[in-house]
Amino acid sequence: MEKQEMMYEGKAKQVYATDDPDRVIIHYKDDATAFNGLKKDSIRNKGVLNNKITTILFNELNRRGIATHWIETLNDRDQLCKKVRIVPLEVIVRNVVAGSMAKKFGIDEGTELKTPVYEICYKNDELGDPMINDTHAVGLGLATREELDQIYEITAQVNEALKEILDQIGIRLIDFKLEFGKDSTGRVLLADEISPDTCRFWEKGTDKKLDKDRFRRDMGDVIGAYEEIYGRLSQWVNTK
Amino acid sequence: MEKQEMMYEGKAKQVYATDDPDRVIIHYKDDATAFNGLKKDSIRNKGVLNNKITTILFNELNRRGIATHWIETLNDRDQLCKKVRIVPLEVIVRNVVAGSMAKKFGIDEGTELKTPVYEICYKNDELGDPMINDTHAVGLGLATREELDQIYEITAQVNEALKEILDQIGIRLIDFKLEFGKDSTGRVLLADEISPDTCRFWEKGTDKKLDKDRFRRDMGDVIGAYEEIYGRLSQWVNTK
Ligand SMILES: Nc1ncnc2c1ncn2[C@@H]1O[C@H](COP(=O)(O)OP(=O)(O)OP(=O)(O)O)[C@@H](O)[C@H]1O
Ligand SMILES: Nc1ncnc2c1ncn2[C@@H]1O[C@H](COP(=O)(O)OP(=O)(O)OP(=O)(O)O)[C@@H](O)[C@H]1O
Ligand SMILES: [Mg+2]
Ligand SMILES: [Mg+2]
Repeated sequence: MEKQEMMYEGKAKQVYATDDPDRVIIHYKDDATAFNGLKKDSIRNKGVLNNKITTILFNELNRRGIATHWIETLNDRDQLCKKVRIVPLEVIVRNVVAGSMAKKFGIDEGTELKTPVYEICYKNDELGDPMINDTHAVGLGLATREELDQIYEITAQVNEALKEILDQIGIRLIDFKLEFGKDSTGRVLLADEISPDTCRFWEKGTDKKLDKDRFRRDMGDVIGAYEEIYGRLSQWVNTK
Repeated sequence: MEKQEMMYEGKAKQVYATDDPDRVIIHYKDDATAFNGLKKDSIRNKGVLNNKITTILFNELNRRGIATHWIETLNDRDQLCKKVRIVPLEVIVRNVVAGSMAKKFGIDEGTELKTPVYEICYKNDELGDPMINDTHAVGLGLATREELDQIYEITAQVNEALKEILDQIGIRLIDFKLEFGKDSTGRVLLADEISPDTCRFWEKGTDKKLDKDRFRRDMGDVIGAYEEIYGRLSQWVNTK
Protein backbone atom coordinates (compact mmCIF):
# COMPACT_ATOMS: atom_id res chain seq x y z
CA MET A 1 0.00 0.00 0.00
CA GLU A 2 1.62 3.25 -1.21
CA LYS A 3 0.88 6.85 -0.30
CA GLN A 4 -0.76 8.76 -3.13
CA GLU A 5 -1.77 12.44 -3.04
CA MET A 6 -2.12 14.19 0.30
CA MET A 7 -5.86 14.73 0.86
CA TYR A 8 -5.64 16.84 4.02
CA GLU A 9 -3.00 18.31 6.27
CA GLY A 10 -4.00 19.00 9.86
CA LYS A 11 -2.02 20.41 12.72
CA ALA A 12 -0.67 17.04 13.91
CA LYS A 13 -1.25 14.62 11.03
CA GLN A 14 -1.45 14.28 7.27
CA VAL A 15 -4.00 12.11 5.51
CA TYR A 16 -3.00 10.45 2.20
CA ALA A 17 -5.07 8.66 -0.38
CA THR A 18 -4.05 5.10 -1.34
CA ASP A 19 -4.88 2.95 -4.37
CA ASP A 20 -7.86 1.60 -2.38
CA PRO A 21 -10.65 4.22 -2.30
CA ASP A 22 -11.76 2.93 1.13
CA ARG A 23 -8.35 3.28 2.78
CA VAL A 24 -6.10 6.17 3.77
CA ILE A 25 -2.60 6.42 5.19
CA ILE A 26 -2.36 8.69 8.22
CA HIS A 27 1.06 10.22 8.83
CA TYR A 28 1.94 11.47 12.35
CA LYS A 29 3.96 14.72 12.43
CA ASP A 30 5.97 16.25 15.28
CA ASP A 31 3.99 19.52 15.19
CA ALA A 32 2.16 20.56 18.34
CA THR A 33 -0.40 23.35 18.66
CA ALA A 34 -2.57 24.60 21.49
CA PHE A 35 -5.19 27.28 22.16
CA ASN A 36 -6.76 26.94 18.72
CA GLY A 37 -3.40 27.26 16.92
CA LEU A 38 -2.13 30.29 18.87
CA LYS A 39 0.74 28.32 20.45
CA LYS A 40 2.89 26.28 18.05
CA ASP A 41 6.02 24.19 18.29
CA SER A 42 7.66 21.07 16.97
CA ILE A 43 8.34 18.34 19.52
CA ARG A 44 10.98 15.94 18.21
CA ASN A 45 9.68 12.37 17.97
CA LYS A 46 6.16 13.20 19.19
CA GLY A 47 4.65 11.85 15.94
CA VAL A 48 6.44 8.52 16.33
CA LEU A 49 5.28 8.13 19.94
CA ASN A 50 1.66 9.15 19.20
CA ASN A 51 1.60 6.68 16.31
CA LYS A 52 2.85 3.88 18.57
CA ILE A 53 0.52 4.78 21.46
CA THR A 54 -2.52 5.04 19.17
CA THR A 55 -1.53 1.73 17.57
CA ILE A 56 -1.52 -0.12 20.89
CA LEU A 57 -4.82 1.41 22.01
CA PHE A 58 -6.75 1.06 18.72
CA ASN A 59 -5.46 -2.50 18.26
CA GLU A 60 -6.77 -3.33 21.74
CA LEU A 61 -10.13 -1.60 21.08
CA ASN A 62 -10.52 -3.58 17.82
CA ARG A 63 -9.70 -6.78 19.75
CA ARG A 64 -12.50 -5.91 22.20
CA GLY A 65 -14.98 -5.56 19.34
CA ILE A 66 -15.10 -1.76 19.22
CA ALA A 67 -15.19 -0.62 15.58
CA THR A 68 -12.24 1.68 14.79
CA HIS A 69 -10.69 2.99 11.59
CA TRP A 70 -7.28 1.45 12.37
CA ILE A 71 -6.17 -1.46 10.15
CA GLU A 72 -2.39 -1.70 10.59
CA THR A 73 0.64 0.38 11.34
CA LEU A 74 3.11 0.56 8.46
CA ASN A 75 6.16 2.22 9.98
CA ASP A 76 7.23 4.70 12.66
CA ARG A 77 4.90 7.45 11.44
CA ASP A 78 2.28 5.87 9.13
CA GLN A 79 -0.93 3.97 9.78
CA LEU A 80 -3.21 2.32 7.27
CA CYS A 81 -6.80 3.20 8.22
CA LYS A 82 -10.30 2.94 6.84
CA LYS A 83 -11.22 6.13 5.04
CA VAL A 84 -14.16 7.88 6.67
CA ARG A 85 -16.11 11.07 6.32
CA ILE A 86 -15.43 12.69 9.69
CA VAL A 87 -18.55 13.64 11.71
CA PRO A 88 -17.77 17.32 12.49
CA LEU A 89 -17.88 16.82 16.25
CA GLU A 90 -15.29 16.46 18.96
CA VAL A 91 -16.63 14.16 21.65
CA ILE A 92 -15.09 14.86 25.05
CA VAL A 93 -15.35 12.48 28.01
CA ARG A 94 -14.50 13.68 31.50
CA ASN A 95 -14.01 11.34 34.42
CA VAL A 96 -12.27 13.96 36.56
CA VAL A 97 -12.66 17.75 36.36
CA ALA A 98 -9.78 19.52 34.56
CA GLY A 99 -9.04 22.19 31.97
CA SER A 100 -11.97 24.16 30.56
CA MET A 101 -14.49 22.41 32.81
CA ALA A 102 -12.61 23.50 35.95
CA LYS A 103 -12.60 27.07 34.66
CA LYS A 104 -16.22 27.10 33.50
CA PHE A 105 -17.64 25.88 36.81
CA GLY A 106 -15.00 27.18 39.20
CA ILE A 107 -14.31 23.62 40.40
CA ASP A 108 -10.80 22.45 41.37
CA GLU A 109 -8.89 20.37 38.82
CA GLY A 110 -8.78 16.81 40.07
CA THR A 111 -12.35 16.67 41.42
CA GLU A 112 -13.80 13.22 40.64
CA LEU A 113 -17.14 13.16 38.81
CA LYS A 114 -19.75 10.72 40.10
CA THR A 115 -20.89 10.02 36.53
CA PRO A 116 -18.82 10.78 33.41
CA VAL A 117 -19.52 14.08 31.68
CA TYR A 118 -19.80 13.99 27.89
CA GLU A 119 -19.42 17.16 25.84
CA ILE A 120 -19.67 17.65 22.11
CA CYS A 121 -18.02 20.50 20.24
CA TYR A 122 -18.72 21.56 16.68
CA LYS A 123 -15.45 21.04 14.74
CA ASN A 124 -15.28 24.47 13.10
CA ASP A 125 -12.06 26.44 13.48
CA GLU A 126 -13.66 29.73 12.41
CA LEU A 127 -16.26 29.49 15.18
CA GLY A 128 -13.63 28.26 17.67
CA ASP A 129 -15.03 24.71 18.05
CA PRO A 130 -17.93 25.82 20.29
CA MET A 131 -19.52 23.45 22.77
CA ILE A 132 -22.98 22.46 21.54
CA ASN A 133 -25.60 19.92 22.52
CA ASP A 134 -27.42 17.10 20.74
CA THR A 135 -30.30 19.30 19.58
CA HIS A 136 -27.86 21.70 17.90
CA ALA A 137 -26.05 18.79 16.23
CA VAL A 138 -29.30 17.34 14.88
CA GLY A 139 -30.84 20.75 14.09
CA LEU A 140 -27.78 21.85 12.12
CA GLY A 141 -27.51 18.49 10.33
CA LEU A 142 -24.09 17.65 11.81
CA ALA A 143 -25.32 14.17 12.79
CA THR A 144 -28.60 12.31 13.01
CA ARG A 145 -30.10 11.28 16.35
CA GLU A 146 -29.27 7.66 15.45
CA GLU A 147 -25.65 8.52 14.70
CA LEU A 148 -25.37 10.38 18.01
CA ASP A 149 -26.78 7.35 19.83
CA GLN A 150 -24.14 5.12 18.20
CA ILE A 151 -21.39 7.65 18.95
CA TYR A 152 -22.34 7.86 22.64
CA GLU A 153 -22.54 4.08 22.90
CA ILE A 154 -19.07 3.59 21.39
CA THR A 155 -17.74 6.47 23.50
CA ALA A 156 -18.91 4.83 26.73
CA GLN A 157 -17.30 1.53 25.66
CA VAL A 158 -14.04 3.30 24.84
CA ASN A 159 -14.05 5.05 28.22
CA GLU A 160 -14.52 1.75 30.07
CA ALA A 161 -11.81 0.02 28.03
CA LEU A 162 -9.28 2.86 28.35
CA LYS A 163 -9.85 3.30 32.09
CA GLU A 164 -9.23 -0.42 32.59
CA ILE A 165 -6.07 -0.52 30.46
CA LEU A 166 -4.59 2.64 31.95
CA ASP A 167 -5.37 1.56 35.47
CA GLN A 168 -3.19 -1.51 34.85
CA ILE A 169 -0.23 0.74 33.99
CA GLY A 170 -0.70 3.16 36.89
CA ILE A 171 -2.31 5.98 34.94
CA ARG A 172 -5.53 7.91 35.76
CA LEU A 173 -7.63 8.74 32.70
CA ILE A 174 -8.82 12.28 33.51
CA ASP A 175 -10.48 13.17 30.20
CA PHE A 176 -10.09 12.64 26.46
CA LYS A 177 -11.37 13.65 23.03
CA LEU A 178 -12.65 11.30 20.33
CA GLU A 179 -13.57 11.78 16.68
CA PHE A 180 -15.88 9.59 14.67
CA GLY A 181 -16.41 9.03 10.97
CA LYS A 182 -18.64 7.12 8.62
CA ASP A 183 -17.19 4.59 6.18
CA SER A 184 -18.48 4.17 2.62
CA THR A 185 -21.35 1.98 3.91
CA GLY A 186 -22.44 4.62 6.46
CA ARG A 187 -21.11 2.66 9.44
CA VAL A 188 -19.93 4.80 12.36
CA LEU A 189 -16.27 4.11 13.28
CA LEU A 190 -13.96 5.56 15.91
CA ALA A 191 -11.35 7.54 13.95
CA ASP A 192 -8.44 9.94 14.50
CA GLU A 193 -6.03 9.14 17.39
CA ILE A 194 -5.85 8.40 21.12
CA SER A 195 -2.63 9.78 22.53
CA PRO A 196 -1.24 12.24 25.07
CA ASP A 197 -2.24 14.92 22.54
CA THR A 198 -5.92 14.00 22.98
CA CYS A 199 -6.12 12.70 26.56
CA ARG A 200 -5.22 13.91 30.02
CA PHE A 201 -3.13 11.20 31.71
CA TRP A 202 -2.09 11.65 35.34
CA GLU A 203 0.31 9.27 37.10
CA LYS A 204 -1.50 7.41 39.88
CA GLY A 205 -0.31 8.45 43.33
CA THR A 206 1.64 11.55 42.26
CA ASP A 207 -0.90 13.06 39.80
CA LYS A 208 2.08 14.01 37.61
CA LYS A 209 0.79 15.19 34.25
CA LEU A 210 1.90 12.90 31.41
CA ASP A 211 0.20 14.61 28.47
CA LYS A 212 -0.06 17.70 26.28
CA ASP A 213 -0.79 19.93 29.29
CA ARG A 214 3.01 19.90 29.80
CA PHE A 215 3.20 21.71 26.44
CA ARG A 216 0.15 23.96 26.97
CA ARG A 217 1.36 25.05 30.41
CA ASP A 218 5.14 25.14 29.72
CA MET A 219 5.84 22.47 32.33
CA GLY A 220 8.91 21.07 30.56
CA ASP A 221 9.93 17.55 29.47
CA VAL A 222 6.98 17.08 27.16
CA ILE A 223 8.55 14.25 25.20
CA GLY A 224 9.57 12.49 28.42
CA ALA A 225 5.89 12.30 29.36
CA TYR A 226 4.94 10.80 25.98
CA GLU A 227 7.83 8.30 26.31
CA GLU A 228 6.64 7.35 29.79
CA ILE A 229 3.12 6.58 28.50
CA TYR A 230 4.50 4.62 25.54
CA GLY A 231 6.97 2.73 27.73
CA ARG A 232 4.27 1.61 30.15
CA LEU A 233 1.88 0.65 27.36
CA SER A 234 4.46 -1.37 25.40
CA GLN A 235 5.44 -3.24 28.58
CA TRP A 236 1.74 -3.93 29.18
CA VAL A 237 1.43 -5.35 25.63
CA ASN A 238 4.48 -7.58 26.15
CA THR A 239 3.40 -9.02 29.50
CA LYS A 240 -0.28 -9.51 28.65
CA MET B 1 -53.80 35.92 51.31
CA GLU B 2 -51.41 38.60 52.63
CA LYS B 3 -47.77 39.30 51.76
CA GLN B 4 -45.42 38.47 54.61
CA GLU B 5 -41.60 38.89 54.56
CA MET B 6 -39.83 39.26 51.21
CA MET B 7 -37.95 36.01 50.62
CA TYR B 8 -36.06 37.02 47.49
CA GLU B 9 -35.65 40.07 45.30
CA GLY B 10 -34.62 39.42 41.70
CA LYS B 11 -34.03 41.85 38.88
CA ALA B 12 -37.66 41.84 37.68
CA LYS B 13 -39.69 40.36 40.53
CA GLN B 14 -39.97 40.02 44.27
CA VAL B 15 -41.04 36.83 46.00
CA TYR B 16 -42.98 37.10 49.29
CA ALA B 17 -43.86 34.47 51.84
CA THR B 18 -47.54 34.07 52.76
CA ASP B 19 -49.26 32.46 55.75
CA ASP B 20 -49.38 29.21 53.73
CA PRO B 21 -45.89 27.62 53.65
CA ASP B 22 -46.66 26.14 50.20
CA ARG B 23 -47.62 29.45 48.58
CA VAL B 24 -45.80 32.63 47.64
CA ILE B 25 -46.85 35.99 46.25
CA ILE B 26 -44.80 37.09 43.25
CA HIS B 27 -44.66 40.85 42.67
CA TYR B 28 -43.80 42.16 39.19
CA LYS B 29 -41.54 45.25 39.14
CA ASP B 30 -40.83 47.71 36.34
CA ASP B 31 -37.06 47.10 36.44
CA ALA B 32 -35.40 45.83 33.30
CA THR B 33 -31.84 44.50 32.98
CA ALA B 34 -29.85 42.98 30.15
CA PHE B 35 -26.38 41.56 29.50
CA ASN B 36 -26.12 39.94 32.92
CA GLY B 37 -27.12 43.14 34.73
CA LEU B 38 -24.74 45.50 32.84
CA LYS B 39 -27.63 47.44 31.27
CA LYS B 40 -30.35 48.65 33.65
CA ASP B 41 -33.47 50.78 33.41
CA SER B 42 -36.98 51.11 34.69
CA ILE B 43 -39.76 50.73 32.13
CA ARG B 44 -42.97 52.29 33.43
CA ASN B 45 -45.82 49.75 33.62
CA LYS B 46 -43.72 46.79 32.39
CA GLY B 47 -44.43 44.85 35.59
CA VAL B 48 -48.18 45.29 35.18
CA LEU B 49 -48.09 44.10 31.56
CA ASN B 50 -45.80 41.12 32.30
CA ASN B 51 -48.09 40.12 35.16
CA LYS B 52 -51.14 40.28 32.88
CA ILE B 53 -49.42 38.46 29.98
CA THR B 54 -48.05 35.73 32.25
CA THR B 55 -51.50 35.38 33.81
CA ILE B 56 -53.19 34.72 30.47
CA LEU B 57 -50.55 32.25 29.36
CA PHE B 58 -50.18 30.30 32.63
CA ASN B 59 -53.96 30.15 33.04
CA GLU B 60 -54.22 28.66 29.54
CA LEU B 61 -51.35 26.19 30.20
CA ASN B 62 -53.06 25.06 33.43
CA ARG B 63 -56.32 24.65 31.47
CA ARG B 64 -54.47 22.40 29.00
CA GLY B 65 -53.23 20.18 31.84
CA ILE B 66 -49.66 21.50 32.02
CA ALA B 67 -48.60 21.80 35.66
CA THR B 68 -47.58 25.38 36.50
CA HIS B 69 -46.98 27.27 39.74
CA TRP B 70 -49.66 29.87 38.97
CA ILE B 71 -52.79 29.80 41.17
CA GLU B 72 -54.41 33.20 40.76
CA THR B 73 -53.60 36.82 40.06
CA LEU B 74 -54.37 39.12 42.95
CA ASN B 75 -53.97 42.58 41.48
CA ASP B 76 -52.04 44.54 38.83
CA ARG B 77 -48.65 43.40 40.08
CA ASP B 78 -49.14 40.36 42.34
CA GLN B 79 -49.72 36.69 41.66
CA LEU B 80 -50.40 33.91 44.12
CA CYS B 81 -48.24 30.93 43.14
CA LYS B 82 -47.18 27.57 44.50
CA LYS B 83 -43.90 27.90 46.30
CA VAL B 84 -41.18 25.82 44.68
CA ARG B 85 -37.47 25.19 45.04
CA ILE B 86 -36.22 26.48 41.70
CA VAL B 87 -34.14 23.97 39.68
CA PRO B 88 -31.01 26.07 38.95
CA LEU B 89 -31.40 25.80 35.18
CA GLU B 90 -32.69 28.13 32.49
CA VAL B 91 -34.31 26.04 29.76
CA ILE B 92 -34.21 27.77 26.38
CA VAL B 93 -36.28 26.67 23.40
CA ARG B 94 -35.46 27.94 19.94
CA ASN B 95 -37.81 27.56 16.97
CA VAL B 96 -36.01 30.18 14.88
CA VAL B 97 -32.34 31.23 15.13
CA ALA B 98 -31.80 34.54 16.97
CA GLY B 99 -29.60 36.20 19.59
CA SER B 100 -26.70 34.22 21.01
CA MET B 101 -27.35 31.25 18.72
CA ALA B 102 -27.03 33.43 15.61
CA LYS B 103 -23.73 34.76 16.94
CA LYS B 104 -22.36 31.40 18.06
CA PHE B 105 -22.94 29.66 14.74
CA GLY B 106 -22.68 32.62 12.37
CA ILE B 107 -26.24 31.94 11.15
CA ASP B 108 -28.63 34.76 10.17
CA GLU B 109 -31.28 35.74 12.71
CA GLY B 110 -34.63 34.52 11.42
CA THR B 111 -33.41 31.17 10.06
CA GLU B 112 -36.09 28.53 10.78
CA LEU B 113 -34.89 25.40 12.60
CA LYS B 114 -36.19 22.08 11.27
CA THR B 115 -36.43 20.71 14.80
CA PRO B 116 -36.53 22.88 17.94
CA VAL B 117 -33.23 23.43 19.69
CA TYR B 118 -33.22 23.09 23.50
CA GLU B 119 -30.45 24.61 25.58
CA ILE B 120 -29.93 24.52 29.31
CA CYS B 121 -27.92 27.10 31.23
CA TYR B 122 -26.70 26.80 34.78
CA LYS B 123 -28.42 29.63 36.75
CA ASN B 124 -25.32 31.04 38.43
CA ASP B 125 -24.66 34.77 38.12
CA GLU B 126 -21.02 34.50 39.20
CA LEU B 127 -20.26 32.03 36.40
CA GLY B 128 -22.37 34.05 33.93
CA ASP B 129 -25.14 31.43 33.49
CA PRO B 130 -23.02 29.17 31.25
CA MET B 131 -24.62 26.83 28.72
CA ILE B 132 -24.24 23.25 29.92
CA ASN B 133 -25.62 19.87 28.88
CA ASP B 134 -27.57 17.12 30.60
CA THR B 135 -24.46 15.25 31.77
CA HIS B 136 -23.16 18.40 33.50
CA ALA B 137 -26.55 18.96 35.15
CA VAL B 138 -26.68 15.40 36.46
CA GLY B 139 -22.95 15.23 37.26
CA LEU B 140 -23.09 18.46 39.27
CA GLY B 141 -26.32 17.44 41.03
CA LEU B 142 -28.38 20.32 39.58
CA ALA B 143 -31.15 17.89 38.54
CA THR B 144 -31.62 14.15 38.29
CA ARG B 145 -31.98 12.40 34.93
CA GLU B 146 -35.66 11.82 35.78
CA GLU B 147 -36.23 15.50 36.58
CA LEU B 148 -34.59 16.49 33.28
CA ASP B 149 -36.85 14.07 31.41
CA GLN B 150 -39.91 15.68 33.03
CA ILE B 151 -38.58 19.17 32.35
CA TYR B 152 -37.99 18.42 28.65
CA GLU B 153 -41.43 16.82 28.34
CA ILE B 154 -43.20 19.84 29.87
CA THR B 155 -41.02 22.18 27.80
CA ALA B 156 -42.07 20.52 24.54
CA GLN B 157 -45.74 20.76 25.59
CA VAL B 158 -45.33 24.44 26.47
CA ASN B 159 -43.67 25.13 23.10
CA GLU B 160 -46.53 23.48 21.21
CA ALA B 161 -49.16 25.33 23.24
CA LEU B 162 -47.48 28.73 22.98
CA LYS B 163 -46.83 28.41 19.24
CA GLU B 164 -50.49 27.59 18.70
CA ILE B 165 -51.79 30.46 20.84
CA LEU B 166 -49.40 33.04 19.41
CA ASP B 167 -50.08 31.95 15.87
CA GLN B 168 -53.75 32.81 16.46
CA ILE B 169 -52.77 36.37 17.38
CA GLY B 170 -50.33 36.89 14.51
CA ILE B 171 -47.12 36.42 16.47
CA ARG B 172 -44.15 34.16 15.67
CA LEU B 173 -42.59 32.49 18.71
CA ILE B 174 -38.86 32.73 17.93
CA ASP B 175 -37.44 31.48 21.24
CA PHE B 176 -38.12 31.61 24.98
CA LYS B 177 -36.72 30.75 28.42
CA LEU B 178 -38.45 28.66 31.07
CA GLU B 179 -37.69 27.94 34.71
CA PHE B 180 -38.88 24.96 36.70
CA GLY B 181 -39.22 24.20 40.37
CA LYS B 182 -40.17 21.38 42.69
CA ASP B 183 -43.06 21.76 45.11
CA SER B 184 -43.01 20.37 48.64
CA THR B 185 -43.96 16.90 47.33
CA GLY B 186 -41.09 16.91 44.79
CA ARG B 187 -43.37 17.43 41.81
CA VAL B 188 -41.83 19.39 38.91
CA LEU B 189 -43.82 22.53 38.01
CA LEU B 190 -43.34 25.24 35.43
CA ALA B 191 -42.47 28.39 37.41
CA ASP B 192 -41.34 32.00 36.92
CA GLU B 193 -42.94 33.96 34.04
CA ILE B 194 -43.68 33.89 30.31
CA SER B 195 -43.59 37.41 28.94
CA PRO B 196 -41.81 39.66 26.43
CA ASP B 197 -38.96 39.71 28.98
CA THR B 198 -38.43 35.96 28.52
CA CYS B 199 -39.55 35.32 24.91
CA ARG B 200 -38.73 36.63 21.46
CA PHE B 201 -42.01 37.58 19.77
CA TRP B 202 -41.96 38.76 16.13
CA GLU B 203 -45.03 40.11 14.37
CA LYS B 204 -46.06 37.74 11.56
CA GLY B 205 -45.51 39.30 8.13
CA THR B 206 -43.36 42.23 9.25
CA ASP B 207 -41.04 40.42 11.71
CA LYS B 208 -41.30 43.51 13.92
CA LYS B 209 -39.74 42.72 17.30
CA LEU B 210 -42.30 42.87 20.13
CA ASP B 211 -40.11 41.89 23.06
CA LYS B 212 -37.17 42.79 25.29
CA ASP B 213 -34.79 42.97 22.30
CA ARG B 214 -36.23 46.49 21.83
CA PHE B 215 -34.65 47.32 25.21
CA ARG B 216 -31.42 45.34 24.69
CA ARG B 217 -30.82 46.90 21.28
CA ASP B 218 -32.15 50.41 22.01
CA MET B 219 -34.88 50.11 19.37
CA GLY B 220 -37.33 52.42 21.13
CA ASP B 221 -40.99 52.04 22.17
CA VAL B 222 -40.34 49.10 24.47
CA ILE B 223 -43.57 49.49 26.40
CA GLY B 224 -45.56 49.81 23.16
CA ALA B 225 -44.37 46.33 22.18
CA TYR B 226 -45.43 44.87 25.54
CA GLU B 227 -48.82 46.62 25.22
CA GLU B 228 -49.23 45.18 21.72
CA ILE B 229 -48.65 41.64 22.99
CA TYR B 230 -51.01 42.14 25.93
CA GLY B 231 -53.66 43.76 23.71
CA ARG B 232 -53.67 40.87 21.26
CA LEU B 233 -53.70 38.26 24.04
CA SER B 234 -56.55 39.87 25.98
CA GLN B 235 -58.61 40.11 22.80
CA TRP B 236 -57.87 36.42 22.17
CA VAL B 237 -59.10 35.58 25.69
CA ASN B 238 -62.30 37.57 25.17
CA THR B 239 -63.22 36.06 21.80
CA LYS B 240 -62.30 32.46 22.63
N1 LIG C 1 -9.87 7.58 8.99
C1 LIG C 1 -9.88 8.86 8.62
N2 LIG C 1 -10.28 9.22 7.38
C2 LIG C 1 -10.28 10.52 7.00
N3 LIG C 1 -9.91 11.54 7.80
C3 LIG C 1 -9.53 11.24 9.05
C4 LIG C 1 -9.49 9.90 9.53
N4 LIG C 1 -9.07 9.92 10.82
C5 LIG C 1 -8.86 11.22 11.13
N5 LIG C 1 -9.14 12.03 10.08
C6 LIG C 1 -9.03 13.50 10.03
O1 LIG C 1 -7.70 13.81 9.65
C7 LIG C 1 -7.30 15.02 10.28
C8 LIG C 1 -6.13 14.70 11.15
O2 LIG C 1 -5.31 15.74 11.24
P1 LIG C 1 -5.03 16.52 12.59
O3 LIG C 1 -5.29 15.76 13.82
O4 LIG C 1 -3.66 17.06 12.38
O5 LIG C 1 -6.16 17.62 12.42
P2 LIG C 1 -6.36 18.89 13.34
O6 LIG C 1 -5.21 19.80 13.18
O7 LIG C 1 -6.68 18.39 14.68
O8 LIG C 1 -7.52 19.66 12.67
P3 LIG C 1 -9.02 19.31 12.49
O9 LIG C 1 -9.30 18.07 13.30
O10 LIG C 1 -9.69 20.51 13.02
O11 LIG C 1 -9.19 19.08 11.03
C9 LIG C 1 -8.46 15.52 11.10
O12 LIG C 1 -9.25 16.44 10.37
C10 LIG C 1 -9.24 14.24 11.34
O13 LIG C 1 -10.60 14.50 11.60
N1 LIG D 1 -43.05 29.72 42.38
C1 LIG D 1 -41.86 30.19 42.76
N2 LIG D 1 -41.39 29.95 44.02
C2 LIG D 1 -40.18 30.43 44.41
N3 LIG D 1 -39.35 31.15 43.62
C3 LIG D 1 -39.76 31.41 42.35
C4 LIG D 1 -41.02 30.95 41.87
N4 LIG D 1 -41.15 31.36 40.58
C5 LIG D 1 -40.02 32.04 40.28
N5 LIG D 1 -39.17 32.08 41.33
C6 LIG D 1 -37.85 32.72 41.43
O1 LIG D 1 -38.06 34.07 41.79
C7 LIG D 1 -37.09 34.90 41.21
C8 LIG D 1 -37.82 35.87 40.33
O2 LIG D 1 -37.18 37.03 40.28
P1 LIG D 1 -36.54 37.61 38.94
O3 LIG D 1 -37.13 37.08 37.69
O4 LIG D 1 -36.55 39.07 39.17
O5 LIG D 1 -35.10 36.97 39.11
P2 LIG D 1 -33.84 37.28 38.22
O6 LIG D 1 -33.42 38.67 38.39
O7 LIG D 1 -34.16 36.79 36.84
O8 LIG D 1 -32.69 36.45 38.88
P3 LIG D 1 -32.46 34.94 39.03
O9 LIG D 1 -33.50 34.22 38.20
O10 LIG D 1 -31.07 34.77 38.51
O11 LIG D 1 -32.60 34.65 40.49
C9 LIG D 1 -36.19 34.02 40.38
O12 LIG D 1 -35.05 33.61 41.10
C10 LIG D 1 -37.08 32.83 40.11
O13 LIG D 1 -36.32 31.66 39.84
MG1 LIG E 1 -6.56 16.52 15.51
MG1 LIG F 1 -35.92 36.23 36.00
